[in-house]
Amino acid sequence: MQEYTHFDNDGHPILVDISNKNITSRTAIAEGWVSLPCSVYDVVSTGNVKKGNPFSIAELAGIMGAKQTSSLIPLCHTINLVNIKVKCSLNTERRALHIVCEATASYSTGVEMEALTGVSIAALCFYDMCKALDKGMVISDIRLLKKSGGKSGEWTAEKEYIK
Amino acid sequence: MQEYTHFDNDGHPILVDISNKNITSRTAIAEGWVSLPCSVYDVVSTGNVKKGNPFSIAELAGIMGAKQTSSLIPLCHTINLVNIKVKCSLNTERRALHIVCEATASYSTGVEMEALTGVSIAALCFYDMCKALDKGMVISDIRLLKKSGGKSGEWTAEKEYIK
Amino acid sequence: MQEYTHFDNDGHPILVDISNKNITSRTAIAEGWVSLPCSVYDVVSTGNVKKGNPFSIAELAGIMGAKQTSSLIPLCHTINLVNIKVKCSLNTERRALHIVCEATASYSTGVEMEALTGVSIAALCFYDMCKALDKGMVISDIRLLKKSGGKSGEWTAEKEYIK
Amino acid sequence: MQEYTHFDNDGHPILVDISNKNITSRTAIAEGWVSLPCSVYDVVSTGNVKKGNPFSIAELAGIMGAKQTSSLIPLCHTINLVNIKVKCSLNTERRALHIVCEATASYSTGVEMEALTGVSIAALCFYDMCKALDKGMVISDIRLLKKSGGKSGEWTAEKEYIK
Amino acid sequence: MQEYTHFDNDGHPILVDISNKNITSRTAIAEGWVSLPCSVYDVVSTGNVKKGNPFSIAELAGIMGAKQTSSLIPLCHTINLVNIKVKCSLNTERRALHIVCEATASYSTGVEMEALTGVSIAALCFYDMCKALDKGMVISDIRLLKKSGGKSGEWTAEKEYIK
Amino acid sequence: MQEYTHFDNDGHPILVDISNKNITSRTAIAEGWVSLPCSVYDVVSTGNVKKGNPFSIAELAGIMGAKQTSSLIPLCHTINLVNIKVKCSLNTERRALHIVCEATASYSTGVEMEALTGVSIAALCFYDMCKALDKGMVISDIRLLKKSGGKSGEWTAEKEYIK
Repeated sequence: MQEYTHFDNDGHPILVDISNKNITSRTAIAEGWVSLPCSVYDVVSTGNVKKGNPFSIAELAGIMGAKQTSSLIPLCHTINLVNIKVKCSLNTERRALHIVCEATASYSTGVEMEALTGVSIAALCFYDMCKALDKGMVISDIRLLKKSGGKSGEWTAEKEYIK
Repeated sequence: MQEYTHFDNDGHPILVDISNKNITSRTAIAEGWVSLPCSVYDVVSTGNVKKGNPFSIAELAGIMGAKQTSSLIPLCHTINLVNIKVKCSLNTERRALHIVCEATASYSTGVEMEALTGVSIAALCFYDMCKALDKGMVISDIRLLKKSGGKSGEWTAEKEYIK
Repeated sequence: MQEYTHFDNDGHPILVDISNKNITSRTAIAEGWVSLPCSVYDVVSTGNVKKGNPFSIAELAGIMGAKQTSSLIPLCHTINLVNIKVKCSLNTERRALHIVCEATASYSTGVEMEALTGVSIAALCFYDMCKALDKGMVISDIRLLKKSGGKSGEWTAEKEYIK
Repeated sequence: MQEYTHFDNDGHPILVDISNKNITSRTAIAEGWVSLPCSVYDVVSTGNVKKGNPFSIAELAGIMGAKQTSSLIPLCHTINLVNIKVKCSLNTERRALHIVCEATASYSTGVEMEALTGVSIAALCFYDMCKALDKGMVISDIRLLKKSGGKSGEWTAEKEYIK
Repeated sequence: MQEYTHFDNDGHPILVDISNKNITSRTAIAEGWVSLPCSVYDVVSTGNVKKGNPFSIAELAGIMGAKQTSSLIPLCHTINLVNIKVKCSLNTERRALHIVCEATASYSTGVEMEALTGVSIAALCFYDMCKALDKGMVISDIRLLKKSGGKSGEWTAEKEYIK
Repeated sequence: MQEYTHFDNDGHPILVDISNKNITSRTAIAEGWVSLPCSVYDVVSTGNVKKGNPFSIAELAGIMGAKQTSSLIPLCHTINLVNIKVKCSLNTERRALHIVCEATASYSTGVEMEALTGVSIAALCFYDMCKALDKGMVISDIRLLKKSGGKSGEWTAEKEYIK
């Protein structure tokens, strides 16, 4: 059976030593969803962008959140990202907000947490802007879709984008 | 149809003016889940706490994350919380980590975002500690369970805890 | 001659003791400008909001910046703002971006610095988004327009809005 | 006509992908001014450094602010600066505080925003320390003086230092 | 035997619920020392304040650090301080830097951690500025001297200032 | 006589220019102690880890604190650490908590401050968790034990671990 990598043999939490890992280009893509009850869906789907663009605000929050990953996640290394994209779109079939975040760095460890954090903060920000309409939104299916680079190479989620 | 509260009439994002709202005790409880693939479940469920306690680390990350809510969520007010509890437990039936966060403040706006942020950061932290075992974990069903206090009074999620 | 309030008699910098000051509603309004060279002005003035809204991004940055005032300005007290508005508009006469920030708190010291910080960060953010067009933009005339509340009462800038 | 670089084709704000840009030494120098009304000018110009040195405090705030640039400016990359200098001096002719900030990094994007942020935070800090003397100070002419390094090479402001 | 207050009955770390505690004025005073080897002592003791004032920089760092206490200490509540003083002085007898920090808030929990954090960060900052002279400095005897306010009332360290 | 490296010739505080220094592997190890009065010692020494593990919490706080060094210490460069270990153990002979922090980076300046900050924040966090038992704990002997890498090469504290 495998063991935790973030604890040493005596159970102390550690920032894993990555001093011997190679610096290579690392990319990660994550996604997540915010279900939209009717009262939210109606406003979001008919929204006039001149009346305020919650997608853009959530995307910005996601970008800023991704940059703060190492301050938020105790055992994450500080990584200077060279690329962050957060895209929010309305999925009319699922009646939900779809969030995708891509992060890239040239470093000695991966950026999965940065992509997942970008999605999470964008989702929370969107919830915040719509919570006066209905507090029943649910944030779901936050997961890694793909990562590349590093010793473990490419990894892809088994299932496709959930729709 | 309702409108966004976080944009003014001209579409500018705003920190909503709460200067005329009453200071009362506000509480919010939120929950969330992290699905655990076999390789993660096996380690987590048989883990010897002396070998490192990922629940405790995730709880701490959630508490610290909840305190940073207003830095992370652009249109959230800064609120000094007087109580934060984050509890992580293994749900053997769902084979998932269950996270519940309770936040309390005596202030003029609610603490729903703080509770949801506490859950989200705890989930991300847990994912981080177990991602070397399997990157296929999925963070789901982050939602508000209950809030009380303030003009809108009590609110409870329609469905019970999802199991 | 008056003396600095932020140093004690021996020249040590201090966070001024405000424990004996009354908690009252305090408001401050500040403004600032970013001059727009032709290449920037053309893009900003004809910009299609669907192609990206730099005003909205700058406003958001200003709101978030205002919330961080006490982390940025060493001798500022931490103040929980109950209202922040940052508005960016194009002044065609002056061919410049005009930024106005209003901040409010119920506290024992004023929020002038929060309003000025909101303007400054919005200006910097706008500069950042347009600097690939022309680095010759100049940020100017950041100043307090008005403040109210507290022992010193109301204060208004001598000159009107500069146009 | 040029277009914004910080938005993609669909208007989503992005952290520009710099993964293909070369890592070279980048330097930027920015300046700014704080006008000093008589009551402030008198104290600052006759100030005994033993009674407290507001220049030094403002310089320190500027250095710390420059290090926080990527947290403050949403679409700025995180850059580890290898050099920051902020110098405050009294310009007796203009009866104003003159602030110059120089920043350097070895990275794949420029440090203009870091230099401008250093100036801005120093200016705000100075305003804060003197605002009890007179709130009528005005922060002006914050601009880039020079930058070097990177694909676009050297850039110099058209006009000399404004005095 | 007493038990930890920062863990619940099941061993989960918690931010202690202070919602039922009274809001009163709370003050704490802490001190600490940095021993100065000869090469540091000589520079510090003969330092010309015009050549740079490390005391003032350390004091400022301490003030800023005290404001960040709740971000640094996981189970500390966020407290808005109304007064922070950090004083650094050279103790010629002990050949050491003496740091005293006083913090005050009107809140429902004490500010001991804020005063201790102010001392600690000032000490670290001073070490940083002098470490090129000699890395053998030692930071010692950081302790609470006195606290007042709250249910537990006044507390005073048994021993006097250590000299 | 040597001079301060963190001030320029005119006494302005500076972030030292390290642009011409070599990027090499740098490591630093620091230690510190928290004396435990009887009432604290008894709880800590007989503590059942299932009832809460303050060592683990303090270690985590130390790791997170070390990552924040450049935000806390004004004249420290921002360094991305590739390794941080903080270990807390009970020293029964000295009846004290012993904290050791090791930090590593591949950069152009050393990581002494990161190791010392890790120790200091862990110590403060431990104090916080035990202060309800007895406020008389004293944080002492925070010092650098060893550093390697860089132009100045290896440095080792004269005395062994103090016990």
